[in-house]
Amino acid sequence: MTAAPAPSPITFPHRHLLGIDQLSPADIVSLLDLADGFVDINRQVEKKLSTLRGRTQINLFFEASTRTQSSFELAGKRLGADVMNMSVGSSSVKKGETLLDTAVTLHAMHPDLIVVRHHSAGAVELLARKVGCSVVNAGDGAHEHPTQALLDALTMRRHKGRLQGLTVAICGDILHSRVARSNILLLSAVGARVRLVAPSTLLPAGIERTGVEIYTDLGTGIRDADVVMMLRLQRERMQGALVPSVREYFHYFGLDAAKLALARPDAIVMHPGPMNRGVEIDSDVADGPQSVIREQVEMGVAVRMAVLEALARNLPNA
Amino acid sequence: MTAAPAPSPITFPHRHLLGIDQLSPADIVSLLDLADGFVDINRQVEKKLSTLRGRTQINLFFEASTRTQSSFELAGKRLGADVMNMSVGSSSVKKGETLLDTAVTLHAMHPDLIVVRHHSAGAVELLARKVGCSVVNAGDGAHEHPTQALLDALTMRRHKGRLQGLTVAICGDILHSRVARSNILLLSAVGARVRLVAPSTLLPAGIERTGVEIYTDLGTGIRDADVVMMLRLQRERMQGALVPSVREYFHYFGLDAAKLALARPDAIVMHPGPMNRGVEIDSDVADGPQSVIREQVEMGVAVRMAVLEALARNLPNA
Amino acid sequence: MTAAPAPSPITFPHRHLLGIDQLSPADIVSLLDLADGFVDINRQVEKKLSTLRGRTQINLFFEASTRTQSSFELAGKRLGADVMNMSVGSSSVKKGETLLDTAVTLHAMHPDLIVVRHHSAGAVELLARKVGCSVVNAGDGAHEHPTQALLDALTMRRHKGRLQGLTVAICGDILHSRVARSNILLLSAVGARVRLVAPSTLLPAGIERTGVEIYTDLGTGIRDADVVMMLRLQRERMQGALVPSVREYFHYFGLDAAKLALARPDAIVMHPGPMNRGVEIDSDVADGPQSVIREQVEMGVAVRMAVLEALARNLPNA
Repeated sequence: MTAAPAPSPITFPHRHLLGIDQLSPADIVSLLDLADGFVDINRQVEKKLSTLRGRTQINLFFEASTRTQSSFELAGKRLGADVMNMSVGSSSVKKGETLLDTAVTLHAMHPDLIVVRHHSAGAVELLARKVGCSVVNAGDGAHEHPTQALLDALTMRRHKGRLQGLTVAICGDILHSRVARSNILLLSAVGARVRLVAPSTLLPAGIERTGVEIYTDLGTGIRDADVVMMLRLQRERMQGALVPSVREYFHYFGLDAAKLALARPDAIVMHPGPMNRGVEIDSDVADGPQSVIREQVEMGVAVRMAVLEALARNLPNA
Repeated sequence: MTAAPAPSPITFPHRHLLGIDQLSPADIVSLLDLADGFVDINRQVEKKLSTLRGRTQINLFFEASTRTQSSFELAGKRLGADVMNMSVGSSSVKKGETLLDTAVTLHAMHPDLIVVRHHSAGAVELLARKVGCSVVNAGDGAHEHPTQALLDALTMRRHKGRLQGLTVAICGDILHSRVARSNILLLSAVGARVRLVAPSTLLPAGIERTGVEIYTDLGTGIRDADVVMMLRLQRERMQGALVPSVREYFHYFGLDAAKLALARPDAIVMHPGPMNRGVEIDSDVADGPQSVIREQVEMGVAVRMAVLEALARNLPNA
Repeated sequence: MTAAPAPSPITFPHRHLLGIDQLSPADIVSLLDLADGFVDINRQVEKKLSTLRGRTQINLFFEASTRTQSSFELAGKRLGADVMNMSVGSSSVKKGETLLDTAVTLHAMHPDLIVVRHHSAGAVELLARKVGCSVVNAGDGAHEHPTQALLDALTMRRHKGRLQGLTVAICGDILHSRVARSNILLLSAVGARVRLVAPSTLLPAGIERTGVEIYTDLGTGIRDADVVMMLRLQRERMQGALVPSVREYFHYFGLDAAKLALARPDAIVMHPGPMNRGVEIDSDVADGPQSVIREQVEMGVAVRMAVLEALARNLPNA
């Protein structure tokens, strides 16, 4: 068994991780520091720790997500937890009651950690209020996806050596994106400059009051940026929004090599995946030398291990 | 690792747990005693035992059941078994042959324990005859659901200090309920008084010959009861049965606070879940101070650990 | 914990197992010898080894296969690996790109072993080129299914004491069968005599040039055979092939007791499962004394343990 990294003196004064909005800059730095250590462990052949041995982690996914669920599953297993996956089809969730009955039922089985993805903003917090164990938000509607923002931050920090003062352009479907929301909160908290680049129909109303810079032209928006973060065009979430055709979207807001040349020469390109190649991002860029998209996935497992371990340290008797 | 409870001197002279009907009163008490110890362990942070280390448990569910499958999965994992879930869609089970081919195939992989849920009464026993390992019935058609009856009994015993002499009113859709059937068998075996309360169309023919008391009026049926056990209205199982409308059903057979007042003041309210709130039970009662519904779920994991361990003790070389 | 068999001096100079066509006769014998040891371990109550402790195995199935996936899952768990199942519905795989994005994403999570089943021939090899870890082909289109051929060979060798010189009749739907293809390659490599027995419409074009013997009559084809291997009639793969009706097929190419009497008296009957009883094989034969079909399933777990362990020995730092 790999020796666990010596317990760092971090304090993480939270029972749940529901959103970036609950975290202080110190909390964020603590989690990223802890995650850095797990990156090294995941690159070893022997990747098994015993931090969560004897603990039960339930992955409760009301929305299918192969990528995020796998990342949390591996994170928990590598920490030694017993991990149980529960995929709940939307058909069996007809009433708000059922979410709570599910929560109460699960809680009675004495899990220590519940990782939840749900299609409704706020559902994870509602569930967290009903259970005594730790809850991690793995994405709730268009609200937050905090571990995605943390893994994005870890990726940036490892490439740029810092977060403060970085210029990060978040581009595309901001309106429907919990990834954008969590990233804006995190990057603002740690002193990065955030630019949002989107057609006006894909920007939330009132977003300009949050202090971020708004661009409706991709070329202008990514000029001299350190980080270009492309978002997935969430066609499945668009109901009533006025959106351009895919071809038109790619023409104006898809990232290709020509547009990327406007960013800093050492700019990194990010995408939370899964990508719509040829819609929001060109394959040349996605697979090019500035892309850190694969590394984001790698950081995902490490960040989730950090979150699970930080929460587990707060368990009674732990 | 948590020390396992000192092996109690129980003998459990069975290879399978197919139904309550195969158990003696002493068997039942042995399982409940063993389960009591697991309740304490499940409430600890460190919940991992090694009783079933190196054993393989397969959960073979021909009917979906998030709750029961999760309970068995956690039970096996906490005892240290390797647990594998197999959900078999009804589409791939067209012939009786296939059940047996599945059984024979699984058995060739050398599991030690197979937990089976199947939509046909008797299918689990048929399967048990074909395999050399231990089989646990997790519900077969309208036949039996023995671990549910055991967890119900454990819940009652912990609240009332005994089972003998308790008056237990089982209310609702008796006709389609394997939960009712297993509870009647268990409670009769340990000397409780069983009342069945249901519209006559939801009572099995000839049930009055089994020695239980029959009521077709809820108020009369639960009067002075120690335990009021409401059953789920199994609308999905009703084919051809003459049933009232949901509104009418709730009026006559749904448990609300007014009707509950007729039972003993310290009566506990039970439900195997998932509940149809507003159909067989009112939310005020389901979430009220007399409800032990959440605790039933907790007891479920402990009882399943007891069953798995008791059967594992009988494995060759164990 | 069961002591692992003393590491045998085998060398297995491969990073992946993509097909039998990459294996030398010595490689095949090494894997079968290693698997023989695992057969004994699987028959013990305590079946847990620690060979793959700290390693991550991902089962990536683009085609559902309860049997093969279960076999690989148990194999990995019994060797101590953390095993994660990913079932990818065909709906989410619309473009070749997606397979590669999936591969790259998975690889970024640092698995050590990926077991892949895919509906397209060559897809597994394509994926293997994109990842740094070991890949095992669990069946790709009509191309190869190498662990099936290995488990078949182990079954034959244990019954007949040798492979060289055996007469093996592979009967039925050769055209659509990756099982047939892998078996032909393996059996030819180790010096068995291979006969193919099928209606001419279910034989691949040009197969006669591979040195196998071709029969279009079942009685003649199995005469004096040591092994009669029946294939599943892959009705779901048949597109445009001229096939007889099921009744006609059984009459001419279904194995029943009368036809089996033409083989050697000690011939063994094999089938990769799942069987179409009454189509390619009669139940009397499938469940009869010459059938080794159950044993094939048992050998499957042992062979997969051998493959996983052989590949794991080649991991860096292992």
